[in-house]
Amino acid sequence: MKVSELMFGKRLATKDLAHQAISKKIGLAVFASDAISSTAYATQEILIILSIAAIGSTNMWQTQGAVLGISIPIAIMISILLAIVTISYRQTIYAYPNGGGAYIVARDNLGEVPAQVAGAALLTDYILTVAVSISAGVAQITSYFPALLPYRVYMAVGVIFLITIVNLRGVKESGSIFAIPTYFFLGIMVLTLIIGFVRLAGGSLATIDPASVEMFHHPEELVTPEAGWAFAFLILRAFSSGCTALTGIEAISNGITAFREPRSANAAKTLIAMSAILVTLFISITVLAVSIHAIPSEGETVISQLGRVVFGQGSLFHFLLLGGTALILLMAANTSYADFPRLAALQASDGFLPRQLTYRGGRLVFSWGIMFLAIAAAALVVIEDASTTGLIPLYAIGVFLSFTMSQTGMAVRMQKVGKLKPGERVKGLETDLVYDEHWRKKQIISIIGAISTFVVMIIFAVTKFTHGAWFILLLIPTLIWIFFRIHNHYKEVAHQLSLSGKRPDTTPRAVQTVILVDDVHRETARVVNFAKSLQHPWKAIHIAVNPEKAQRVEDKWKERIGEGQLEIVPSPYRLLAEPIADYIEAIQSQMPGCFVHVIIGHLAMDTYWEQALHQNSSFILNLVLSRMDNVVFTTVPYHIHRTDDDEGDGQTSALKAAEKVEIEADKVGA
Amino acid sequence: MKVSELMFGKRLATKDLAHQAISKKIGLAVFASDAISSTAYATQEILIILSIAAIGSTNMWQTQGAVLGISIPIAIMISILLAIVTISYRQTIYAYPNGGGAYIVARDNLGEVPAQVAGAALLTDYILTVAVSISAGVAQITSYFPALLPYRVYMAVGVIFLITIVNLRGVKESGSIFAIPTYFFLGIMVLTLIIGFVRLAGGSLATIDPASVEMFHHPEELVTPEAGWAFAFLILRAFSSGCTALTGIEAISNGITAFREPRSANAAKTLIAMSAILVTLFISITVLAVSIHAIPSEGETVISQLGRVVFGQGSLFHFLLLGGTALILLMAANTSYADFPRLAALQASDGFLPRQLTYRGGRLVFSWGIMFLAIAAAALVVIEDASTTGLIPLYAIGVFLSFTMSQTGMAVRMQKVGKLKPGERVKGLETDLVYDEHWRKKQIISIIGAISTFVVMIIFAVTKFTHGAWFILLLIPTLIWIFFRIHNHYKEVAHQLSLSGKRPDTTPRAVQTVILVDDVHRETARVVNFAKSLQHPWKAIHIAVNPEKAQRVEDKWKERIGEGQLEIVPSPYRLLAEPIADYIEAIQSQMPGCFVHVIIGHLAMDTYWEQALHQNSSFILNLVLSRMDNVVFTTVPYHIHRTDDDEGDGQTSALKAAEKVEIEADKVGA
Repeated sequence: MKVSELMFGKRLATKDLAHQAISKKIGLAVFASDAISSTAYATQEILIILSIAAIGSTNMWQTQGAVLGISIPIAIMISILLAIVTISYRQTIYAYPNGGGAYIVARDNLGEVPAQVAGAALLTDYILTVAVSISAGVAQITSYFPALLPYRVYMAVGVIFLITIVNLRGVKESGSIFAIPTYFFLGIMVLTLIIGFVRLAGGSLATIDPASVEMFHHPEELVTPEAGWAFAFLILRAFSSGCTALTGIEAISNGITAFREPRSANAAKTLIAMSAILVTLFISITVLAVSIHAIPSEGETVISQLGRVVFGQGSLFHFLLLGGTALILLMAANTSYADFPRLAALQASDGFLPRQLTYRGGRLVFSWGIMFLAIAAAALVVIEDASTTGLIPLYAIGVFLSFTMSQTGMAVRMQKVGKLKPGERVKGLETDLVYDEHWRKKQIISIIGAISTFVVMIIFAVTKFTHGAWFILLLIPTLIWIFFRIHNHYKEVAHQLSLSGKRPDTTPRAVQTVILVDDVHRETARVVNFAKSLQHPWKAIHIAVNPEKAQRVEDKWKERIGEGQLEIVPSPYRLLAEPIADYIEAIQSQMPGCFVHVIIGHLAMDTYWEQALHQNSSFILNLVLSRMDNVVFTTVPYHIHRTDDDEGDGQTSALKAAEKVEIEADKVGA
Repeated sequence: MKVSELMFGKRLATKDLAHQAISKKIGLAVFASDAISSTAYATQEILIILSIAAIGSTNMWQTQGAVLGISIPIAIMISILLAIVTISYRQTIYAYPNGGGAYIVARDNLGEVPAQVAGAALLTDYILTVAVSISAGVAQITSYFPALLPYRVYMAVGVIFLITIVNLRGVKESGSIFAIPTYFFLGIMVLTLIIGFVRLAGGSLATIDPASVEMFHHPEELVTPEAGWAFAFLILRAFSSGCTALTGIEAISNGITAFREPRSANAAKTLIAMSAILVTLFISITVLAVSIHAIPSEGETVISQLGRVVFGQGSLFHFLLLGGTALILLMAANTSYADFPRLAALQASDGFLPRQLTYRGGRLVFSWGIMFLAIAAAALVVIEDASTTGLIPLYAIGVFLSFTMSQTGMAVRMQKVGKLKPGERVKGLETDLVYDEHWRKKQIISIIGAISTFVVMIIFAVTKFTHGAWFILLLIPTLIWIFFRIHNHYKEVAHQLSLSGKRPDTTPRAVQTVILVDDVHRETARVVNFAKSLQHPWKAIHIAVNPEKAQRVEDKWKERIGEGQLEIVPSPYRLLAEPIADYIEAIQSQMPGCFVHVIIGHLAMDTYWEQALHQNSSFILNLVLSRMDNVVFTTVPYHIHRTDDDEGDGQTSALKAAEKVEIEADKVGA
């Protein structure tokens, strides 16, 4: 108990589950880390794909510059897409002031199946956010300390472990302490970019020495810019990789309730600010990276190359830039630790995931969800060797699928709004539908958003298919299938349990009490005592697993209990459960409709290792007999209190001899 | 059920547990495999240690021959030791016609502690027999197929898996089918040796080309023959490694009951025959190995080098020799699969190991013991990379410790026999003590045996200490400590449970019945029905983990049960067990000495995955409440029968809508 409190903190009462309203500035810091942190790897991942063509080019350095320069128009395309999604999500924030994640919007407007599609997509992507962000964060650290590179998997798994412990303790997600890393990162990154652009304008910005960085090694075939369709395909692949910059943009729509009133307006303003910052950083980083001839590499991140050119290799500011980047990536991973368990709990309370996920632990956190997330993310990190580039093809399909679901939902919702009369307000499932004269304009925005994110998702799936996207394309339908199996099970159980509002018949029925006797000692006496106390007729049976012992038990019963009837039931195959089940069935066929009340003793020990030294038949029998109809199972525990192990040494040898006889006589089988 | 029957076979009745008496010829084959198979690696392990000096010599090939030649006197020394142990064990066979393993002899003559020392030593060594024999067997196969060398760990673990399955099915250890591998090995080995010696005499025996085999790589410092004490120490180390030839010699003394009458005489003759064969093979192999300049290697075993020189590389007979050797090593491992679980069951029935180990499974085998042996042996194989040489320093300490215990026990026994009058017969614990005029001579033999095996064990422990023997020297005392902790626990439990022959007081006591209610539905109705059927006053409580739900439960109780009293117990920390325990304690303080009878419903599902979707509070509460005194715990199962998942698709939408309402109303928390 003490150890767990030290690790996870003191338990908290349910009433402590409260939200504090936060300002826009804090809100930006809290919810933007996921989105903004993706600038740490988005540019690099575009360059890595383009380098397949760059290396393949004949006149390497000249063409490389040209090919890698394609990253700038790609970044601009992605920024336009980001703008579309932002405008579309701004509408969702106003429509769902109590939180409008893709799951809720899809459930509210599209129905069960689309909601589960969005749920599966988001859960998958929350896991990937942790794996990608932590891997990218570790890559910043190993860029500064190259000696740590061989240990990156250990470092990443270690960080996941720590972040899991912190989250099992429970963190106030809206705490202002979270603002520090975000603003620190923004400060140092803006400083880097300003100095970089000033030097670039002044012509004093150096370029990366190709000898100082090892180019990313592509195991696949190289494509030259002359290759036509194959090159176009590669450009689309680079675009897909860069689209990971859009991940996390939906965070604010999940957390509207955390904002001060007017919540929707404040959240919407924060969303616009976040997107503006994201676009600025992303394009600036990409332009500067191309200008310094950054070399996509496994050993040093593009951010590190940027910092090294601007501030000098190993300088304090180089260190601060990488530290700040690692920190905001850590914050991004932390966001998933709040979002994943919350969405899982939501799906569980809808009956699509195990109900246990709705249970808040002693520390008010959804412990099961946190642990599942941690294990899945750590597994991905280990499988992909903590390589961001290895994880990227799995990432963002889910996010774009959820974008599509959410915006399709909004388009359907606007169709309903369009049918309202001016000033009309209709009660909806989640939020009220309010008349809006601009419904058509808003619907068109949502449709544009839905179509563009859907197209990007298809581009993503096709261009990354063989690099890992196939796994996600198999996983999401599998998850949806599992969700519905679980749901059907809960529906079936609810159906079978339902009283349909009627009062059930609880007229008393006959009860046949059977005591299971393994041996005759104090525990047996306790069981007989309880059976007699119930003031009901009873009889005892012994399953003769060992025929010699059965005879001894019969004799001891006569001698020490001396009342009631003990029946010896043969068990030629040394089984316990089957002869009991047969015996019960015989009773039930003689007296249909009766309850068979099986009573068994149980030796309860103080510690688990002592408990493991006993057969604990009561647990196993309980499991087996619970599958029989109208059988009630009672355990009468007899608590063995532990005494000091060394006590026996002080005993006289006479006492020891007496004990030996008792052990012989009373060998405990239970 | 079908899969397990296919894998493990049909279950067997207890009466099928019978022995068939076997002849000396079959007995030799069955019990000798462990001992004789050690000739497959004993010579090689001597040469490997000597090669540390051989490589260190300046004039390499000339001195190497001389140094490796030391293996011949070492083999002769070991054979003398073997003769002493054989003569000593022959006496044990006559004294214990019902089986005289070291554990039984030590327990009978020396007491609890020496018996447990012997038990710990033997259990450790049975595990090592499996690991060493399987590794050595795989080494024979990879000698013939060098391409398989990188897969030796997988092969060894695979073989352990197969042998485990076979033993979980149960094998008749005395079946004559076991004679085939032993006699096949003997046949092919004798042929090899005869041809080898004939060629050696004729001068046509080739020597191994040093370029064809890679010498075993020693990571340790080399010792030259000029090094004095260090060289002497090395010779002792080589002697220790060779002493593994003695392992398995005790097998016959464990299995005397399997022989035809006169059992002891037949077993004793078989023992002598076995030792004679073992000595002949061991010395012959060593002499021939030295003659062909065998090169101790990790890639090719000495047996393979012998076969290659005698029959030609890759010839059929080379293959048969290696196959036969691998087969007898497999048989040797199989012997431990009978001995380990049997000894563990013996110690468990004496209360020094968990009682579960005495339990024979549906196939009449000690399943737990077999599985523990398999896991431990496989772990050793993986840790030591399936290298016989890596495992050897752990091996044989246990065997020699058990030899010492057994022979010390025999010496003590002879002292007692010496006090008898001519013709006198005294009842002993295990077997009768019978007057013997040669008692003094026999006692001296036992003492010589005890001293020499003890000295060898010390040599072993000292020379191999840093190479792994330290682990066994820590493990054995740890095991003994654990055995006594377990024993003290069982003694304590027996003490607390003992009725001391008196009739206990079972006067009926007051029973307070409390129903735990999670929600109100058919399962709840079943629980109330049972409580009413008991014809006892009862009341119901609901633990308000979720205050809103508590209100709904209270309302539904009034509406649908409408009788009895439902109390809402608050739980601010969302705990279930603690508020219940507090409630029970309150009852007990009001009414001392009463039974508190807690009744809870349980949803029983057809499959485990369905069961896992429910909270199964009854299991957890049972575990927690069983630690409280005078609390009796009853589960009333409600069986949910599975229906076809697709059935719902045929339902009318009206029915579906009705179901939806029910799910809303009856959300199942349990």
